[in-house]
Amino acid sequence: MAGVPVAFIGLGLMGRPMAFHLLKHGHAVRVFNRNPAKTAGYAEQGGVVCATPAEAARGAKIVFTCVGDGPDVQQVLFDEKTGATREASAGALFVDHSTIAPEAAQQIHARMDGRWRFVDAPISGGQKGAIDGTLAIMCGGAPADFDEAEPVMRSYGKKITLVGGPGMGQAAKACNQILVVNSIMGVAEALMLARRLGADPAKVREAILDGAARSWSLEVLGPKMIAGDDSAGFFIKHQQKDLRIVLESARAKNQPLPATALIHEIYKMLQARGGDKKGNHCLYRAVQIMGGEDWRAD
Amino acid sequence: MAGVPVAFIGLGLMGRPMAFHLLKHGHAVRVFNRNPAKTAGYAEQGGVVCATPAEAARGAKIVFTCVGDGPDVQQVLFDEKTGATREASAGALFVDHSTIAPEAAQQIHARMDGRWRFVDAPISGGQKGAIDGTLAIMCGGAPADFDEAEPVMRSYGKKITLVGGPGMGQAAKACNQILVVNSIMGVAEALMLARRLGADPAKVREAILDGAARSWSLEVLGPKMIAGDDSAGFFIKHQQKDLRIVLESARAKNQPLPATALIHEIYKMLQARGGDKKGNHCLYRAVQIMGGEDWRAD
Repeated sequence: MAGVPVAFIGLGLMGRPMAFHLLKHGHAVRVFNRNPAKTAGYAEQGGVVCATPAEAARGAKIVFTCVGDGPDVQQVLFDEKTGATREASAGALFVDHSTIAPEAAQQIHARMDGRWRFVDAPISGGQKGAIDGTLAIMCGGAPADFDEAEPVMRSYGKKITLVGGPGMGQAAKACNQILVVNSIMGVAEALMLARRLGADPAKVREAILDGAARSWSLEVLGPKMIAGDDSAGFFIKHQQKDLRIVLESARAKNQPLPATALIHEIYKMLQARGGDKKGNHCLYRAVQIMGGEDWRAD
Repeated sequence: MAGVPVAFIGLGLMGRPMAFHLLKHGHAVRVFNRNPAKTAGYAEQGGVVCATPAEAARGAKIVFTCVGDGPDVQQVLFDEKTGATREASAGALFVDHSTIAPEAAQQIHARMDGRWRFVDAPISGGQKGAIDGTLAIMCGGAPADFDEAEPVMRSYGKKITLVGGPGMGQAAKACNQILVVNSIMGVAEALMLARRLGADPAKVREAILDGAARSWSLEVLGPKMIAGDDSAGFFIKHQQKDLRIVLESARAKNQPLPATALIHEIYKMLQARGGDKKGNHCLYRAVQIMGGEDWRAD
């Protein structure tokens, strides 16, 4: 499917490569970003750079957003002067790729009030997935709306799933983040214990990689921990924002998540040492600090 | 390689199928088990059932042990009357498949005192892996001793790794157990949050299965949690023994493992409700209890 008039609002680490994929796939793309520097190179590739979300939404069949947290999404959609809904056609479809609380997504669904349509569609796969066009996209909304957005999202998505009704894409993303951090925490503690016991962490990793200990984290992030490479595939500060959403969603349902809550606290050790822009695998640095070593983000 | 005279001591859930694999591969196998009922059917398959570890070890080139904890291994090897070393040939090779502390394994290595040889070789893969002959085996010891045992262990092992010197097989096993329980804990919290948020846990699992949340636990144990199937691939009581070893090893090195320690505590909730023989994936029951539901092992 090509040639669909779309808008893309929010050209951050993720959104910028995603919007380029839409262009490459032949869609007519109007973009907006709060910081106009991020739209550089866009007009040259055939995109239209707009001054407000409202202007970007003009004539679009689908309006994609990829911004920060719930209030940011509300603002780019509903701001009285510049919000995308100000100029969107009646019945336009809004698809939000931001990670926000499931309940916040449900509020946006409700606020569309039958005049427009909405799909919550948070993404996973990191900046690499956005650049490679291999993102996982977890969607919540009406099946017909999902079916309409899905072929266009194929421009940058690989595994695209309708998880359920309003907010259920965000629910899946929250679950994804729980799994990611618990998995990283296990790898961090395991590889640190290996070192303390005098074993070669790389040998240990290799010995246990295919069994019940198997995980994406051990495969992909284990080698970075072993090499002492703290560079980010996913920033700690973004991980913490996502965990805050997870824990608030759980609290609203009176559901304790003790392991995830502990990990959220442990990340704060790294934030206190300047680690906001280090990778989320740096939990191994926290385990190292707890074992008596020093670490500080450079 | 076939026809090696070996002994196998400890025909429990794991040891019994392993010893049968040795027979099937044409080795001359003498077995001992504390409870003689477990040796049933063994003589009929061509094995020799013995009354003591010492008797089993007679004439063996390799003596395998697969018993409980460190003191059990010490007893079957060194008991003054019945220990396997009483009758083992000078230079015989001992290979221990039990999960014990790395330090306890190092003590056994030392106690061999040049008269015999020892490889610590804990296993992973559960009873299913033992029955299918697809165990992972993590080894610590001298390369020449490993090379001698490896072709015989191929009878029931698939991934067989020399991790390092004395105790390093046990070190790898400790790391493996850290990864296993942290991974399960993540799946347990994630699938429970999915439920609380009104999402279909099976749909959520499917949406996130291939990305950064990917793990053996989500793949294999996730469906059991979703189905409410508490049957054991690996008993909670054995998991707890292994975690005790992990935490004691870490404590000896002054290395805090906060997430693993928390999970060890949470398993106690299930033990207090009669869950010792339920599967280690029942951490999801603990999360459920914490969220206000009732559960007790039947």
